[in-house]
Amino acid sequence: MSTTIQKFSLTLPIFAYPKEIRLSNSFHDTIVALATPPGVGAIGVIRVSGKSTITLVNDIFYGQDLTTCTSHTISYGTIRTEKETILDEVLVSLFKAPASYTTEDVIEISTHGSSYIIQKVIELLISKGARLAKPGEFTQRAFINGRFDLAQAEAVADLIASENLSMQQTAMKQMRGGFSDEISELRERLVHFASMIELELDFSEEDVEFADRKDLEKLVNEILDTLTPLIDSFSWGNVIKKGVPVVITGKPNAGKSTLLNALLKEEKAIVSSIPGTTRDFIEDNLILEGIRFRFIDTAGLRETTDEIEAIGVKRTKEQMVKASLVLYLFDGNTETIGQLVEVRNELVEAQTPFLLVGTKIDIGILEEYEHYEIPIIWISAAKNELSELTKRLVAIGKQNEVSRDQTIVTNTRHFESLTRTSQALSKVLTAISENVTGDFLAQDIREALHHLGEITGQVTTDDLLDNIFSKFCIGK
Amino acid sequence: MSTTIQKFSLTLPIFAYPKEIRLSNSFHDTIVALATPPGVGAIGVIRVSGKSTITLVNDIFYGQDLTTCTSHTISYGTIRTEKETILDEVLVSLFKAPASYTTEDVIEISTHGSSYIIQKVIELLISKGARLAKPGEFTQRAFINGRFDLAQAEAVADLIASENLSMQQTAMKQMRGGFSDEISELRERLVHFASMIELELDFSEEDVEFADRKDLEKLVNEILDTLTPLIDSFSWGNVIKKGVPVVITGKPNAGKSTLLNALLKEEKAIVSSIPGTTRDFIEDNLILEGIRFRFIDTAGLRETTDEIEAIGVKRTKEQMVKASLVLYLFDGNTETIGQLVEVRNELVEAQTPFLLVGTKIDIGILEEYEHYEIPIIWISAAKNELSELTKRLVAIGKQNEVSRDQTIVTNTRHFESLTRTSQALSKVLTAISENVTGDFLAQDIREALHHLGEITGQVTTDDLLDNIFSKFCIGK
Repeated sequence: MSTTIQKFSLTLPIFAYPKEIRLSNSFHDTIVALATPPGVGAIGVIRVSGKSTITLVNDIFYGQDLTTCTSHTISYGTIRTEKETILDEVLVSLFKAPASYTTEDVIEISTHGSSYIIQKVIELLISKGARLAKPGEFTQRAFINGRFDLAQAEAVADLIASENLSMQQTAMKQMRGGFSDEISELRERLVHFASMIELELDFSEEDVEFADRKDLEKLVNEILDTLTPLIDSFSWGNVIKKGVPVVITGKPNAGKSTLLNALLKEEKAIVSSIPGTTRDFIEDNLILEGIRFRFIDTAGLRETTDEIEAIGVKRTKEQMVKASLVLYLFDGNTETIGQLVEVRNELVEAQTPFLLVGTKIDIGILEEYEHYEIPIIWISAAKNELSELTKRLVAIGKQNEVSRDQTIVTNTRHFESLTRTSQALSKVLTAISENVTGDFLAQDIREALHHLGEITGQVTTDDLLDNIFSKFCIGK
Repeated sequence: MSTTIQKFSLTLPIFAYPKEIRLSNSFHDTIVALATPPGVGAIGVIRVSGKSTITLVNDIFYGQDLTTCTSHTISYGTIRTEKETILDEVLVSLFKAPASYTTEDVIEISTHGSSYIIQKVIELLISKGARLAKPGEFTQRAFINGRFDLAQAEAVADLIASENLSMQQTAMKQMRGGFSDEISELRERLVHFASMIELELDFSEEDVEFADRKDLEKLVNEILDTLTPLIDSFSWGNVIKKGVPVVITGKPNAGKSTLLNALLKEEKAIVSSIPGTTRDFIEDNLILEGIRFRFIDTAGLRETTDEIEAIGVKRTKEQMVKASLVLYLFDGNTETIGQLVEVRNELVEAQTPFLLVGTKIDIGILEEYEHYEIPIIWISAAKNELSELTKRLVAIGKQNEVSRDQTIVTNTRHFESLTRTSQALSKVLTAISENVTGDFLAQDIREALHHLGEITGQVTTDDLLDNIFSKFCIGK
């Protein structure tokens, strides 16, 4: 029986990217890149990784002999050109293999934050034999060298891009292997399942069933029960990554831009009180109390439907279905309650949560609103009376937040692999119910294992890796 | 006699900013700031300095106990909130007092380069009792704690802002104390001078002259001989800092913008081949082979003088005098040799080096240019035939470069203090020639010493310091 198991581990494509291939990458060269953002700052950090790291840096560094330094120590000295010109006074941090980010010898050179100096130090290292690192190449090396799996490597980029607690926690959990553990557990159960079937194939002439079909069916259902919430979490994952989608609509001049500007202004003030957090605000993208909102502009649609209907609900319905919330902005001084009720009915029909927001309350409202029955949030961007609206937005956004323990899939690639795994397992269920032979079952299971392996990088290709790591920033 | 010397050191305002006052600053608090540029990068470095640095960071850091770590070592661990939420996996670099940038306990936390994470870690440190550092506050502490003098502290900011070899070398020399040494030497000689005069004052009733007036005159002249080149170097210093001033002029549509764009495009390509060096190009500011050029736009002038004269040389003369070079651009297909000779005569009269640049050579030139005698550089921005021009620009720029050994004053404050020192010394010379009494001489010498002391920060005020360090970036 032990031979069969051994044979199984050879036939199933668990390691489609064998170690030999991995190490055939150009890992004999030493790479260098700026690890800190470009721009003006007190310091810049240049990262070097590879076999020649220590001798290479030692060659341009005047201070302690780095070859005699122990790992995780910092040396002070100068970087000099061949002509003995002092380029900078620096701190050199040494991380000896394998106790480094890439598991190779790594040195981080902390320079003064001048673009000129950084450029010259990198040029000097290149002239000594280093090569400029490709985007994500340090993390790619960490993955190839087995420091972490592909899902964890991808989480590093997500962590860097994180801009609120949900994003950060999701990425952190994934980077620390939480998601990988879940995938591993699923995989282990599938491997057990598969080994039984493979065993049957070896004894096929004897017509034995090592794997009880009822038990297998139960097992596949259990695995699907674990997969489904992961797959479903992707829509939440998208909300976490891209923000809670909010459609703002209303007649022209209802006060949409004024509202957004007022909201943005408030938030910017909060953000800029801590330096180093300047973000490029994409228009209509807003973070309130750590929750990201993505305001979807329906202005274009509004213009064309201006004369036909109050808001053109029908034509924006498609967007509204995708939205977590619709904000209907109206000017209570010009838009009658009759018009508003009409809009409200259309919104109810669209089956998306909505808020009716009366703007410009400082200018005044029609008398009839004094006895209105439908719930309206009145705001004044001019007088900065927005607190009720922001409170409601945050409350709705919080409903979209996920519990800390739940694993959220935020990566499209993972979502697709999980979906394909699920499809393969559904085929297994069908096969069982149709009493097909073990070899067909085995094929479907191999497919499921293949797709699960794609997530953690046990099954991968150079193209896929290049595609993943090219989205990283340089220096990571 | 030893008592007299002692008395002298008390009366002269050499330490107008005594140690007691320095230490009255709010140095019991611990400061924190992002030391790397804001924006997207692989890592961010948060710097903490002050008495409570180690206990404060230890409180949020889960890894090795930092209180037991030795200086210049790096620990790996996580930063956690009070609720045990992992904010990030980090590297913590420890620099124990006095072996740190500020001479206080300093910790640098290397986080993932997410603005959100960086903001949260800084907020966490602030909640534990740290205070957000003011711009340049780390360097200010280094100065106040006696790690370096004021001229050296100012050089740190210059070094960060440096964008070519001249700027970098000038700042580096100043940061490493080269300039301060020269000032110290001058000061020492003056102090000797002063002590003799002060001695005379003590024995004034006896009408002795300890300081031979001839010797003193010689000494002051010697000091002035050292001061004058330093003062004169300021105009070169400005060129280094701000670029070689080049006035571009010519008739409308002579091809100025096309030329600048072509030059900028070429340079941008060079710069962007090394990541992390993206610079905000100010229009008409250009670096060729490491030499910065500042192109001065005379377009406004040109428009108003369009009808009156070929180029309105007279009205741009003021700018031309300041310029290191005038480029006169003309279209050889429309502008005759006669017109060009007229312009050339005016340029010769302006006494500024100039180049006549014939543009759009690809379109063609008037026949008469085939036998022209005056030197013209023909270019084609469209066909990217610019090499002769750039070669000439670089050659002229290099004439403006200074030898590596020469000290260059680049700081307006230093220039002013040197000028005032020089003025005070000139008064001393006058006083000697007019045979005035020692106490008047002593007063002028004190003034000279005062102004020299301003440069190195031996004489300073809180306002001056605030003004200097507020121009630093946060985190330095």
